[in-house]
Amino acid sequence: MDRFECLICGPVASRDPYSPFCPGCAEPLFLVPAARSGGKIIHEDRPLALERFADFLPLDGIDPGLSLGEGMTPLVRLGRTGAAMGLAAVYAKNEAQNPTGSFKDRGTAVAVQKAVSLGIKRIGTVSTGNMAASTAAYGARAGLETFVLLKEGTAVTSLKAAGIHGPRLIAVEGDYGSLFRASLDVGKRLGISFMNSIDPYRMEGYKLTAFEIYLQMGRRSPRFLFVPLSSGGHLLGLMRAFEDLEREKLIATYPTFVGVQAQGCAPLATAFAAGLDRYERPAEVRTIAHAISNPTPPAGNAVLRLIHDHKGILLAVTDEEMLEAQRELAAAEGLFCQPESATTLAALKKLVAAGRIAEKSGDAVLVLTGSGLKTPHLLESVPVEIHRIPLSGLESCLSRLF
Amino acid sequence: MDRFECLICGPVASRDPYSPFCPGCAEPLFLVPAARSGGKIIHEDRPLALERFADFLPLDGIDPGLSLGEGMTPLVRLGRTGAAMGLAAVYAKNEAQNPTGSFKDRGTAVAVQKAVSLGIKRIGTVSTGNMAASTAAYGARAGLETFVLLKEGTAVTSLKAAGIHGPRLIAVEGDYGSLFRASLDVGKRLGISFMNSIDPYRMEGYKLTAFEIYLQMGRRSPRFLFVPLSSGGHLLGLMRAFEDLEREKLIATYPTFVGVQAQGCAPLATAFAAGLDRYERPAEVRTIAHAISNPTPPAGNAVLRLIHDHKGILLAVTDEEMLEAQRELAAAEGLFCQPESATTLAALKKLVAAGRIAEKSGDAVLVLTGSGLKTPHLLESVPVEIHRIPLSGLESCLSRLF
Repeated sequence: MDRFECLICGPVASRDPYSPFCPGCAEPLFLVPAARSGGKIIHEDRPLALERFADFLPLDGIDPGLSLGEGMTPLVRLGRTGAAMGLAAVYAKNEAQNPTGSFKDRGTAVAVQKAVSLGIKRIGTVSTGNMAASTAAYGARAGLETFVLLKEGTAVTSLKAAGIHGPRLIAVEGDYGSLFRASLDVGKRLGISFMNSIDPYRMEGYKLTAFEIYLQMGRRSPRFLFVPLSSGGHLLGLMRAFEDLEREKLIATYPTFVGVQAQGCAPLATAFAAGLDRYERPAEVRTIAHAISNPTPPAGNAVLRLIHDHKGILLAVTDEEMLEAQRELAAAEGLFCQPESATTLAALKKLVAAGRIAEKSGDAVLVLTGSGLKTPHLLESVPVEIHRIPLSGLESCLSRLF
Repeated sequence: MDRFECLICGPVASRDPYSPFCPGCAEPLFLVPAARSGGKIIHEDRPLALERFADFLPLDGIDPGLSLGEGMTPLVRLGRTGAAMGLAAVYAKNEAQNPTGSFKDRGTAVAVQKAVSLGIKRIGTVSTGNMAASTAAYGARAGLETFVLLKEGTAVTSLKAAGIHGPRLIAVEGDYGSLFRASLDVGKRLGISFMNSIDPYRMEGYKLTAFEIYLQMGRRSPRFLFVPLSSGGHLLGLMRAFEDLEREKLIATYPTFVGVQAQGCAPLATAFAAGLDRYERPAEVRTIAHAISNPTPPAGNAVLRLIHDHKGILLAVTDEEMLEAQRELAAAEGLFCQPESATTLAALKKLVAAGRIAEKSGDAVLVLTGSGLKTPHLLESVPVEIHRIPLSGLESCLSRLF
């Protein structure tokens, strides 16, 4: 029987299985890390990421038939980028190489393993894109009835990329935050298990990114860890994972966690800058970064609390800064990520420029959350020069381009 | 010093470094497998795929700084698909999880390692999409001047996804086959190393897919291996890799190799069906499968020869069959691939229906070459039902969809 806790109330006696919130204070719930006699072991010889880190997961077993081979993404050294900033080493953890092209697959994989083990037949999610595709894919693989709720106005590519997996697709008018809460209420009445952004099992899945970074860094923490920040589930999962590693005495120090928002929707960075422990909804939302533009992040206050405890940093970058960083990652390092993912590089550059990260500070890892192929419409603004010629003009054209 | 051979003339005395063709017979050249005293070892503990299989590669060293973490893609069991056909086991090797979303990255990675080790500063490719993005990405990462030649009329998404890496992009009017040959001539005169589809080092990179399948199957060959077939470089690389494994006494039997073309452009499947050892250019090309629609595949006759030697199979499937298979992989297994990749499942179904693969025949591996996100325009035809409702209608809508 899994046990749950909240950052404020501690362990809770009972939990509504259709809600990710603490019955006492309405803050998000987390799994209580289970103890394991003799300590937890990383099984590096096992094929699936879920199997390698099984000792850390709240699953009694792993069914490989439900997996799409999520995780085990590369940690790519950004030599040119690091050198340009005078840093010892900068790495990208490229989550775009997950089965549906984003980090969401790690969370969905764990949530679906749990759902199937509990005999749940109907799952759902509320999403602006990445989580829709991920939940639809894993739901299809598991043979579950899958309900995907999207905000009216979601890009057609996102709709279709989720729709090809055959879920029930519902576009709902109105506010994302209201839809998030309505989905939980309706899910409970109809018996649909909604695995939204801060589902506790989903956050357990995000832990695997941290465990892999730990291994890929040679069994230690990086000095800085940059993560795009929206609902808070991803960053919370990563912070909790390093707490797991510390508890198991596998790391001596924590990274400095840096959560990055889009300036056009930055309730948490704003609260952090003002030294507040609760965020306020911004008056308006204006950013191209739809994947990280939640004005009422359901785990927002938990993020503020845990970032405070860990002496982390929250900050915001502009759309222009993230688009420039996206192009820089593509042109200098060969990595084509979503603009939302490139917020991490934009934030690193800001902190370096402000003198808050210096050469001797050591290494930084940027978590690139999703593939640039997910947002083809944003490529329209990329200045690409195309030379149009007849075949007979090939040699003269090429020689002019040296 | 690397040595080269051709399937007809055997080892060649000297090779034009700007041409992939045999100076004697104009068939494609391959690297002569180097012997290694004490046999070749797979180094499973090394992080990069290139490092794991370094004993099999014609590289004196691996520079991790040039890699994007290509390879090590999952082998996903297709339980529902296999059961529906009454087969023991069907697997997908999901090449969409490579850095730029297609198998091309494996070939580009090896070709760029070799180019940099030789001091080459300018590289190029001729592509309809996947290879453009891959070469642009790896060229950018290596800091090489990169020239990408595309057919006039290439989809804007493909252009931009390559363009963001900052290569010289040239759209050329006229025939793809002529452009392929012109690129080699012009490249030689201008000192641009064109790593096109059948570049010998590129084909060495494709071998890694076979080595990984061998490991993932528990160090044996699958009974059948299905691969989409266009220029021939991919299938040739895979066949040569199993020959390497056989030479090292690592496998006892070969898989039956099955190359799959689009019926609207199937010169090799047509020649195979007619028992010919040379193909003819089809009168017209008419298929949605642009990534595999080369009417004059430069390694086509080599494919016919090696498929004959290995008692393999070549066949074609219609656009409708591949689109149906694409939806089936997404809806039944959670895998969203390019239609070109789904030709493999369509072909498997055809062979099963024709009684050429029966239950006891054992397992089949389908190589899914690229991500469905690469061809968003083809999603337009996917029948996706979207229910549009106000928030107040959520419960009644969901309950009606059970």
